[in-house]
Amino acid sequence: MARNPERRTALTDAAIEVLAHEGARGLTFRAVDARAGVPVGTSSNYFSSRDDLFMQAGARINNRMAPDPAAVEEALRHPPSRELVTSLMHWLVQRMTADRTGYLAMLELRLEATRRPALRAQLTQTVRAEFDAGADFHRNTGLPGDHDTFRVLYLAMTGVLLEHFTLPGVLTETALDELVESVVTQIVPR
Amino acid sequence: MARNPERRTALTDAAIEVLAHEGARGLTFRAVDARAGVPVGTSSNYFSSRDDLFMQAGARINNRMAPDPAAVEEALRHPPSRELVTSLMHWLVQRMTADRTGYLAMLELRLEATRRPALRAQLTQTVRAEFDAGADFHRNTGLPGDHDTFRVLYLAMTGVLLEHFTLPGVLTETALDELVESVVTQIVPR
Repeated sequence: MARNPERRTALTDAAIEVLAHEGARGLTFRAVDARAGVPVGTSSNYFSSRDDLFMQAGARINNRMAPDPAAVEEALRHPPSRELVTSLMHWLVQRMTADRTGYLAMLELRLEATRRPALRAQLTQTVRAEFDAGADFHRNTGLPGDHDTFRVLYLAMTGVLLEHFTLPGVLTETALDELVESVVTQIVPR
Repeated sequence: MARNPERRTALTDAAIEVLAHEGARGLTFRAVDARAGVPVGTSSNYFSSRDDLFMQAGARINNRMAPDPAAVEEALRHPPSRELVTSLMHWLVQRMTADRTGYLAMLELRLEATRRPALRAQLTQTVRAEFDAGADFHRNTGLPGDHDTFRVLYLAMTGVLLEHFTLPGVLTETALDELVESVVTQIVPR
């Protein structure tokens, strides 16, 4: 396996682009090489198999979407109110919107996971760790509501993001920001 | 265009199988013919283009998943309580689970819609009509809560279904039925 870390990251980012633009079935070594503008055969030096390519793409998306720890610190300087939950959810939507390609690629990976047990195991672990970290953050920060509150909020935000990124014309009666506020108001106690 | 309606339905169902098992990019006339076990060239007599194939698959999934009107009538004989909402949501999950292939194919179509404007327009109309019908039903039946309640419930159930069908190992702390109950309890007033 080749060991140039910048090259590996660039190839993995190219794989994420291929996923979003051509779908999971389009993700081949050749498509990654073409998208990254490198000689044919390059990515086969960095990924041991297509499974490996899918799994490294999943890990990388997660990494790209993780919030900046300094910004998390900053958020924690506010009182743990429902308003803070609303700000955090706006921020989540902003991070996803800034990486629309990553969001769509992750949905492709979720579907591909129904066909690839190794990918399913890896994504389950990643998404579960993220869910658990969110639940811990909610509790430790003293945000209003209990574990059920957090879980239902997580599920409703999943719905918001899926609608917004795949069929943005469905819920146009309300602007995205207002939709997020409505979700928090309905689910999180004062 | 060929006009045998049973043959058209069988080919469209084969297209839905191809979508769920091979992804949107795998949906070609040849793949549909193979999946349906008919001679090569058959589906090109029933669909004018790949766009048409995607759009007819979308319309058919919607049709397959629609609740039986008699069962809706039956549900309406119960008082419009939060318990009735819970029953309706369990029933929704059962219908989706009974047609897992249709659910996964619809997710593939949502992703493909980000790349095909005609498909996006058609799916937006279909999903929006379904959302509006649900909102009207909620109001006309006198189910507890207002339009915001219905919308947030819709979004949270979208999240439940996405998690359950793509990464069922993430929210295993709670059985699916209990998760649905928790969603209704958090969102719908008594």
